[in-house]
Amino acid sequence: MARGFFLVLEGVEGAGKTTQARLIGEWLDQLEIPHRLAREPGGTALGESIRELLLEKRGARIYAETELLLMLAARAAYVKEVVGPVLAKGWVMVSDRFELSSFAYQGVGRGLGLEQVRALNACATGGLKPDLTLVFDLPVMTGRARQIAAGKAEDRIEGAGAAFLELVGAAYRSFAEADDAVRLIDATGTETEVHRAARDLLRSLFPEPFGSGRG
Amino acid sequence: MARGFFLVLEGVEGAGKTTQARLIGEWLDQLEIPHRLAREPGGTALGESIRELLLEKRGARIYAETELLLMLAARAAYVKEVVGPVLAKGWVMVSDRFELSSFAYQGVGRGLGLEQVRALNACATGGLKPDLTLVFDLPVMTGRARQIAAGKAEDRIEGAGAAFLELVGAAYRSFAEADDAVRLIDATGTETEVHRAARDLLRSLFPEPFGSGRG
Repeated sequence: MARGFFLVLEGVEGAGKTTQARLIGEWLDQLEIPHRLAREPGGTALGESIRELLLEKRGARIYAETELLLMLAARAAYVKEVVGPVLAKGWVMVSDRFELSSFAYQGVGRGLGLEQVRALNACATGGLKPDLTLVFDLPVMTGRARQIAAGKAEDRIEGAGAAFLELVGAAYRSFAEADDAVRLIDATGTETEVHRAARDLLRSLFPEPFGSGRG
Repeated sequence: MARGFFLVLEGVEGAGKTTQARLIGEWLDQLEIPHRLAREPGGTALGESIRELLLEKRGARIYAETELLLMLAARAAYVKEVVGPVLAKGWVMVSDRFELSSFAYQGVGRGLGLEQVRALNACATGGLKPDLTLVFDLPVMTGRARQIAAGKAEDRIEGAGAAFLELVGAAYRSFAEADDAVRLIDATGTETEVHRAARDLLRSLFPEPFGSGRG
């Protein structure tokens, strides 16, 4: 690979992105494909500071515009310090969230408008696009029930309510309809079933680098 | 005043903005004009956290895009929490820096481009414009000499070098040429001389609210 492969995992909370990222990492290990896993907003020292500011519930009110701009500031650092260098080495970059989160959460969910958010986002990414985005799709209530069962406390953004998350979930589905580089994965099954679906899709769409007989 | 008056003070480091803000505050006290002084990026809890991230020299490298987006995130909070409410009360808002700093430092100085920076900035401000911006104009070397004489350590942005600050100073002057709401004040004189020039300009341009016979 000349440029590496940029794979992004998206979805509402409880859809299992983080678990699926780990399983994809283990699979790439088996395939001996060099890769890096990271999460957004984070993955850099600055990004982790911004992540803390954004997700803490006790802090002062954070306005939608502020939230977006902080996310984008973290993304600019993430692209320059993490994604860019990994792709330049020809590795697979597996990112837990990327620009589609801004489009779904801030553009649609918070009502800032997709056009504005896309324009602002381009400043942060310099136009870098994922090769493929997998959206783990799950009814919002199933995701919340899973999180409650797992004893996971809500953070500030998740605490925004079910109607907000329904809107975000619908936005993700509309992005998948509009763009071949965004694919839905049914996330209602077991972890293993969902992982197999993701793996099969990756292999069929991108025989290179994922289609090896191994794994 | 129905909407208050939004006054912004700008200039390169060492031009005396902070001192002049204090002197204008004292003058407004004498005139019994209700006002608030604040500085950007800061003035809110979130903004002060962002200011710390931006100005610390020891931290990881901060890219131009990240710097801009962090500044804008702080600005969005500042407009909503500080400037907007002050103007809504009909008060005078005196701000140490605002959008012209982004245009001069990031748009021109860091080379991100004025058009892009202006578009991004509009998201943070919602289009709110100062009624008047005073640019305290000083040869860059005079400003640095003043700071060194005062024993003030350089922060990360000031440490960027004389050529960078020359570029920023030239940008400020070009903004003043292009826009009647941006005025240069010669800042080479004493604090009192500079304050008198600022006060005279405010009185002549805006008899209401500054033209009272008092003060």
